[in-house]
Amino acid sequence: MDEKILRAAVVGAGYWGPNLARNFAASDHWELAAVCDLDADRAARVAGAHGGADVETSLAALLARDDISAVAIATPAGTHHSIAMAALRAGKHVVVEKPIADSASAADEMVAEAHARGLVLMTDHTFCYTPAVRKIRDLIAVGELGDILYIDSVRINLGLVQPDVDVFWDLAPHDLSIVDFVLPGGLRPVSVAAHGGDPLGTGRACVGYLFLPLASGAVVNVHVNWLSPTKIRRITIGGSRRTLVWDDLNPQQRLSVYDRGVNYEQIAADGEERRAATVSYRLGDTWSPALPEQEALGLMVAELADAITQARAPLTDGRAGRRVLGVLEAASASLASGTAFIPDPHRELELSA
Amino acid sequence: MDEKILRAAVVGAGYWGPNLARNFAASDHWELAAVCDLDADRAARVAGAHGGADVETSLAALLARDDISAVAIATPAGTHHSIAMAALRAGKHVVVEKPIADSASAADEMVAEAHARGLVLMTDHTFCYTPAVRKIRDLIAVGELGDILYIDSVRINLGLVQPDVDVFWDLAPHDLSIVDFVLPGGLRPVSVAAHGGDPLGTGRACVGYLFLPLASGAVVNVHVNWLSPTKIRRITIGGSRRTLVWDDLNPQQRLSVYDRGVNYEQIAADGEERRAATVSYRLGDTWSPALPEQEALGLMVAELADAITQARAPLTDGRAGRRVLGVLEAASASLASGTAFIPDPHRELELSA
Amino acid sequence: MDEKILRAAVVGAGYWGPNLARNFAASDHWELAAVCDLDADRAARVAGAHGGADVETSLAALLARDDISAVAIATPAGTHHSIAMAALRAGKHVVVEKPIADSASAADEMVAEAHARGLVLMTDHTFCYTPAVRKIRDLIAVGELGDILYIDSVRINLGLVQPDVDVFWDLAPHDLSIVDFVLPGGLRPVSVAAHGGDPLGTGRACVGYLFLPLASGAVVNVHVNWLSPTKIRRITIGGSRRTLVWDDLNPQQRLSVYDRGVNYEQIAADGEERRAATVSYRLGDTWSPALPEQEALGLMVAELADAITQARAPLTDGRAGRRVLGVLEAASASLASGTAFIPDPHRELELSA
Amino acid sequence: MDEKILRAAVVGAGYWGPNLARNFAASDHWELAAVCDLDADRAARVAGAHGGADVETSLAALLARDDISAVAIATPAGTHHSIAMAALRAGKHVVVEKPIADSASAADEMVAEAHARGLVLMTDHTFCYTPAVRKIRDLIAVGELGDILYIDSVRINLGLVQPDVDVFWDLAPHDLSIVDFVLPGGLRPVSVAAHGGDPLGTGRACVGYLFLPLASGAVVNVHVNWLSPTKIRRITIGGSRRTLVWDDLNPQQRLSVYDRGVNYEQIAADGEERRAATVSYRLGDTWSPALPEQEALGLMVAELADAITQARAPLTDGRAGRRVLGVLEAASASLASGTAFIPDPHRELELSA
Repeated sequence: MDEKILRAAVVGAGYWGPNLARNFAASDHWELAAVCDLDADRAARVAGAHGGADVETSLAALLARDDISAVAIATPAGTHHSIAMAALRAGKHVVVEKPIADSASAADEMVAEAHARGLVLMTDHTFCYTPAVRKIRDLIAVGELGDILYIDSVRINLGLVQPDVDVFWDLAPHDLSIVDFVLPGGLRPVSVAAHGGDPLGTGRACVGYLFLPLASGAVVNVHVNWLSPTKIRRITIGGSRRTLVWDDLNPQQRLSVYDRGVNYEQIAADGEERRAATVSYRLGDTWSPALPEQEALGLMVAELADAITQARAPLTDGRAGRRVLGVLEAASASLASGTAFIPDPHRELELSA
Repeated sequence: MDEKILRAAVVGAGYWGPNLARNFAASDHWELAAVCDLDADRAARVAGAHGGADVETSLAALLARDDISAVAIATPAGTHHSIAMAALRAGKHVVVEKPIADSASAADEMVAEAHARGLVLMTDHTFCYTPAVRKIRDLIAVGELGDILYIDSVRINLGLVQPDVDVFWDLAPHDLSIVDFVLPGGLRPVSVAAHGGDPLGTGRACVGYLFLPLASGAVVNVHVNWLSPTKIRRITIGGSRRTLVWDDLNPQQRLSVYDRGVNYEQIAADGEERRAATVSYRLGDTWSPALPEQEALGLMVAELADAITQARAPLTDGRAGRRVLGVLEAASASLASGTAFIPDPHRELELSA
Repeated sequence: MDEKILRAAVVGAGYWGPNLARNFAASDHWELAAVCDLDADRAARVAGAHGGADVETSLAALLARDDISAVAIATPAGTHHSIAMAALRAGKHVVVEKPIADSASAADEMVAEAHARGLVLMTDHTFCYTPAVRKIRDLIAVGELGDILYIDSVRINLGLVQPDVDVFWDLAPHDLSIVDFVLPGGLRPVSVAAHGGDPLGTGRACVGYLFLPLASGAVVNVHVNWLSPTKIRRITIGGSRRTLVWDDLNPQQRLSVYDRGVNYEQIAADGEERRAATVSYRLGDTWSPALPEQEALGLMVAELADAITQARAPLTDGRAGRRVLGVLEAASASLASGTAFIPDPHRELELSA
Repeated sequence: MDEKILRAAVVGAGYWGPNLARNFAASDHWELAAVCDLDADRAARVAGAHGGADVETSLAALLARDDISAVAIATPAGTHHSIAMAALRAGKHVVVEKPIADSASAADEMVAEAHARGLVLMTDHTFCYTPAVRKIRDLIAVGELGDILYIDSVRINLGLVQPDVDVFWDLAPHDLSIVDFVLPGGLRPVSVAAHGGDPLGTGRACVGYLFLPLASGAVVNVHVNWLSPTKIRRITIGGSRRTLVWDDLNPQQRLSVYDRGVNYEQIAADGEERRAATVSYRLGDTWSPALPEQEALGLMVAELADAITQARAPLTDGRAGRRVLGVLEAASASLASGTAFIPDPHRELELSA
């Protein structure tokens, strides 16, 4: 199996880098080759915790090495674009901590560069690799829920009022990346409406609502809130066949699939224009699938390895990161313009996979 | 105490009329004088259940009687205006089943007529008289929550898709009348934005969101949904001192008052323009007040009696009904216009009480 | 279908009699023929609410009528035996409000009398006819849970300290009748141990625990409590295949069936005496079956009709009432004797059905 | 503050030892002087993680050192007695992982030895140092609950069927040590009744119930279960003034204090023997105190330091460990004897503190 082993370098040894390093080191698919940080001590502590990884303080030196397949970037968002572009130009596969970049146009360049070079560009949407979210994706993919009718996501708690970002940019990336992951074809809203409240006068929204109609007629809503004394992490996905509720704070029943719903049929009556509608209700069983205990980040690094080996896009590729960024930018524009919707936030590059 | 007894007539013996009749009959303040319905049998059944009430089939005859102080109207919404106007012109105090009328302008006429004649005009916002909602109003009135920062109301369940109204008009009147009741000064949003989804193609919104910013900087959001397999009835009211959660489906702890929150202070630093902000958190106790067991409608008819006796506006007066109607009309306009906000929905008559 | 209609009389028009009368009157299988009470006014009120039922004030006169098939007894427990014996001797089928009698020996006589005369003797264990409990019985009957390993029943709330009975006799009949109903063959414990607490010095147990080992090796425990500030109504039934939890206060998920458990196998190792055990765990899905909305008492009177028509024992026959009474008597004996177990409380008559 | 620093050695570097070492090392009160294990590598790994601690493989050598004040014993239960006795004889203060010994008589010797030498003997009942349990103890101590009426403790989940101990010895030590900690004067039951079930035929109880009446008339019951698909960790403590519920799996409201209860008063009526009783109910507020976030083991090592410095018994002293062991031994005797109670399990040495 030694030939299959890929070698990774982690760039950035701050908050998230050590988690990435630990998961690369523990993986059957990977060897942790190096940890790179301007702060050599910090890099050394992370490298030392996992045996033989090298310490690098120069990005250029790191990228010049030919024993490294992939670079995982866990630096501040403002530096993602330049580091990722350098890594791609050096022929490395890249996984980037979210958000993939600090602007959609920067993300577009990264996606184009990776595409042109045939390299994997992945966004580390860690939540998508939790067993619950993977299960939701699978259930939707096989049609268990039927057509998606609506998605309502609530992510509220007493949170740190951030100095630099509002509650949309702080919390909604989680909801948006999950919705993007589970919807076949990704999250591509027709428009974006954002409403926010700043009742404490902090200069940025602390309470926020996002409304995202889809082309299918389905609607997505996201409620994020830093000022709630109770903590809720719940996504409801209504389907024509079944409805699913994910309650992340109920470890004893994280996923519930309800065979309850409204059946609505319009019947063209007797050849004429008149239409009759029949409404009926299903009040069936509830089912809560068992979920394995697995660390999301371990599955993420395995997916990166598989994508590289199989020369395919990973589940959360650069485009996914770009779509989420597009919605967030549109949300900010909606918020700034007061009332307007910003149409078409997903000017995604249409490149072949 | 006999002199204090007021005499009421109930107009409309369908779904809600019998409840009104039962509560007038059981009240210390009231005698049920008559039940009026075009269908004499139906009126007789309701009157018969409460002893000596008369049966009337003519509204004119009923209003011509001089032994009746007040008329309670429980007929279809389209008839509220004409019946109420006739009753007011006949010198009767009036309580009207919600919605107070089928248009804001009709409601304006009713409010003006009652004002001109010095009569009580009340809206039967029954939910406001539940022990929990009265307690919320009291807690806010005495400053227990501090300044209101946000209100988030969720009212979702698997509901009947109505043939004539959308989910906003079906469910949101409950949330709006409650918010109007507990906010000092009533619900007077700066604007109204409504977003709806009709993923089943029924011709009307089945999933809806209302966003209502207030002049104070606080924001109100209402989520109503007919397609949810789970039932939630929860209102969170965030305040600068405390935050309250009302969970109507948890009879063991309907109200929770959290002494948790964010303290945010801006400090003008050293005489210059620069400002520093301090953010701190309170993680204090939770308190759940005991609530008496009382029937809301019994408290409503008592309030009507008190308002008449004391010649004052009742807690849920005609203006309150008018304000709720104004928000609903603005919501419909917002929905119809696609993206726009409808400013100033509360063109309330500014009359002295 | 008229020939199939049976005619019932309700004896006792106090608390429970009106419910029985209403359900007989509403049933397709029954006609409510008469209501009998020493208090003619009370009987008349109940009879009057359901059209043409006769009022009787003499039990002898009632039993002498030949147009009545069955008598439902809802009088104080001390009178059950004499009224039921008279009714059986008059050739009437009988259903008795629980407890079936005030002593096991009195119940034995009733069971023997009904058996000798080929009449139906039923105990009104209403809870057994709720949709949830019927579903539990069905699931166990078809082997969904496998062998029953343990049953743990908790029924606690802030309850009225009764002047004449302890918490065992007040609350445990519900648990015991349910367990008797769902266990194939009924509840036949090998022994009964009761432990009680009377920390307020009321002269009777306010907190109680019952431990009932079964011949199969399974154990049943019941916790009843009048002093709990929270209300819990939960029965857990552990099986070798699956475990079921009934939470009566969670209307959104009353029954949960867990495919989780411990698999324990003993293997005789290598021809010798030594044995190895393998322990493994199942962590499978959870399933919550939909339950119909049906009034339990309506199903109870339907079951009485079916038992009479088909000349078979009803689901909750006199023997079931006798078994529950036997356990309660054994519990009292255990409590009185301080430490001892009372073996064999189910000296049930072994008569052919 | 250097003079105040105490020096500790951890004996046993297996499962629990590293946690003890980490907390000694992180404490303001302690310096981690040495880690002792027969397996030098294992000891070195633990010592190495915390800087300068020495590695010892000989207990005798460790105890001969005069730079060590206290020894923390985290070895198998069968070795606790001999190691602790040696440490005490060497003049060291001792904290022992629970259970304090493998028999009550062994524990008695340890208690006597520590007493005779004026040394601290502590049991590491870690759970008692959680913020919730400390708060419960404080609330009871100041009379917030009034007289204790009953304690009901439930600790159930799908657990490992242990090869050597039954469910009582595996799980009940947690409940018993907590009850011992919060009851003023400790847990001293009048008798012990244990009931167990072994429905899988494993050779030991997998489902267990303990009933412990107290001299005051209060009763304590403990339910432990390895076969439950759901996890419950809840202790209800009913008092004459208030009742407290600890739900360890509800991080948003771990403690609830209910001002609900039954007031029962017996009144000697008119100078005669007859007594009247009045029963009334309180249905007051619920209160959930905020709890700090603190690691229990950190508070435990701080308490050990304080006890040594102040020459007093620690909160969970050797006697507490001995009382828990006494109840467990009585439970085993009750279980073995089938039906009998084992009176007076707490033959505690009455020595002055």
